[in-house]
Amino acid sequence: MLTQIDHVGIAVADLDEEVERYRRAFGLEPTHRELMGDQGVEEVLFAVGESYVQLLGALGSDTPVGRFLAKRGPGVHHLGYRVANVTEALGRLRAEGVVLIDETPRGGSRGTTIAFVHPKSMGGVLVELVEGPSPTTAGRRV
Amino acid sequence: MLTQIDHVGIAVADLDEEVERYRRAFGLEPTHRELMGDQGVEEVLFAVGESYVQLLGALGSDTPVGRFLAKRGPGVHHLGYRVANVTEALGRLRAEGVVLIDETPRGGSRGTTIAFVHPKSMGGVLVELVEGPSPTTAGRRV
Repeated sequence: MLTQIDHVGIAVADLDEEVERYRRAFGLEPTHRELMGDQGVEEVLFAVGESYVQLLGALGSDTPVGRFLAKRGPGVHHLGYRVANVTEALGRLRAEGVVLIDETPRGGSRGTTIAFVHPKSMGGVLVELVEGPSPTTAGRRV
Repeated sequence: MLTQIDHVGIAVADLDEEVERYRRAFGLEPTHRELMGDQGVEEVLFAVGESYVQLLGALGSDTPVGRFLAKRGPGVHHLGYRVANVTEALGRLRAEGVVLIDETPRGGSRGTTIAFVHPKSMGGVLVELVEGPSPTTAGRRV
């Protein structure tokens, strides 16, 4: 069901500062940058092997990532797994009694289809299921 | 420098219960189980693509993972990146002013060589560098 770790989502206090930190410390260059106004977040992706490190900057304090930062401080926010089919994956999880945040798939960044699973059913880990464009899809706006 | 995400380390309240959760929810089977007494932790690995999900059970409350659980509750504990050479990676990070937890590499699970980087230099993320046996190395004691 889970074919790879698509990304690790990391909430950051200042997106540009953190991008510079990853560039300097690890020699990484961003492969994608996208503003998702409806989710109150801007993301920058760095490719690491077949996965991404996803830095998440909040577009305001009253957003999911903004509230996370206020409560927990910067750090890992969620874990994104790649699946072949989000709808089928949600069906399996529902049958196992897992509590879902998204009962049906919705659009994510990079043209992906996604759904979030509630951390209370995942041992405190906010899990995102990701289907769609290959991780090698070229980024835009970087 | 970072060739792939080696693993995502997740602190869990009850290791066997959480293994069962991953088995049922995602259809995953453990590929490795190891007790690291000197680190006060027992780990179970699930292979997901080229990476691992690493569940970490504390061997007591006065251990690093035990203290993490008491303070933050279960959830993502650290992020492990695979590098070709931990010593060289530490040298680069040191030159960039990054604060290290391990100034020199030490032994990790699966016969790997590892070093931890301080979260205060990594935007709140506890980072582990991992060198050594391929992720496809067969597990023991599962």
